[in-house]
Amino acid sequence: MNTNSGAILVLSGPSGSGKSSLIGVIKEHIGDHYFSISSTTRAARDGEIDGVHYHFLDEKRFKQEIEDDQFLEYAFVHGNYYGTSIAPVKQALKDGKLVIFDIDVQGADAVKHRMGDITTSVFITTPSLSTLKKRLSSRGTDAQDVIDRRLEMACREISRMSEYDYIVINDDLDHAAKIIIRVALAARLKVPTLQINEFVQQWEQS
Amino acid sequence: MNTNSGAILVLSGPSGSGKSSLIGVIKEHIGDHYFSISSTTRAARDGEIDGVHYHFLDEKRFKQEIEDDQFLEYAFVHGNYYGTSIAPVKQALKDGKLVIFDIDVQGADAVKHRMGDITTSVFITTPSLSTLKKRLSSRGTDAQDVIDRRLEMACREISRMSEYDYIVINDDLDHAAKIIIRVALAARLKVPTLQINEFVQQWEQS
Repeated sequence: MNTNSGAILVLSGPSGSGKSSLIGVIKEHIGDHYFSISSTTRAARDGEIDGVHYHFLDEKRFKQEIEDDQFLEYAFVHGNYYGTSIAPVKQALKDGKLVIFDIDVQGADAVKHRMGDITTSVFITTPSLSTLKKRLSSRGTDAQDVIDRRLEMACREISRMSEYDYIVINDDLDHAAKIIIRVALAARLKVPTLQINEFVQQWEQS
Repeated sequence: MNTNSGAILVLSGPSGSGKSSLIGVIKEHIGDHYFSISSTTRAARDGEIDGVHYHFLDEKRFKQEIEDDQFLEYAFVHGNYYGTSIAPVKQALKDGKLVIFDIDVQGADAVKHRMGDITTSVFITTPSLSTLKKRLSSRGTDAQDVIDRRLEMACREISRMSEYDYIVINDDLDHAAKIIIRVALAARLKVPTLQINEFVQQWEQS
């Protein structure tokens, strides 16, 4: 029962927390994973590939999918739609994979609400706001107003950190990687309540 | 924050599920653990040592401790009191240890209720009732009426399996050991909500 069923690992954390590097670590260590790719109506940035970084949809198509109840969660942020299609997630769970979400606090909430019993949630953060500022500035990829917006969002998201199952303070990447692997390996073991109840029913008869 | 705070691992499962062997595995792998020893008013059996298998108390002392609110949980089962003193658990948590409980469903419920945010719970079971019957009979340590009572209790406890965070089906001990180590390593990472909230408060100022 333990090893064949799919499960969900939700990862949240501010841009600059090192979340992407840690997701890379998880992908390396958990063979049978499916990394959920969000859909969005925002324009692709330089270097972003459709179907890799996002599924880029126009607004008409996105709204149609909302109407058809095709999203596990979606949100309208800074003038653009972002969402997670439910079909590939269901398929990956059926295939027994660990489905990994890189998602904001609001989205994480929606996933936990809908898939609670097989969901493990992790919040990744820097040790301090000043560290986050430093990391965002030193990347040199974002304009100051983008950085300011990210910092503001980070403060908002961090205030809801205690809603997560685990917290990873990414001070040292090697240490954080060790922690995230432990969490991912355990997350893999979650079993849907429905399946447990079936097992219980069969247990007495066998 | 992650590595220095204590956490709780609650293990339940019928007698004959191999729970004791798996607890041995956890003790070997998690260096800084504290295995919670229950107190009881029942007489010590052959080979049982006071302070190792149980703290054996007389009824007067046990009732006094109940009155003094010294128990994290207690119960009256088959004519005897069983309970967990709170003081050593608090001390072990303060020392940053993983506190391991071998406890029935009712006790697990009480611990989760009181220490929820740092508690991970695991139910250990045989793949089937017939396997459990076979294991209990082949041990040759218990009289038939004791075995019957254990089987009856097992059926009652297993019906509440889905209340646990993780299920371990102990079909093959090596495989179950691998699973339980994964769960224990992750359980170690739970952080009290209070501590997370303190971190959040400091985060913006630092």
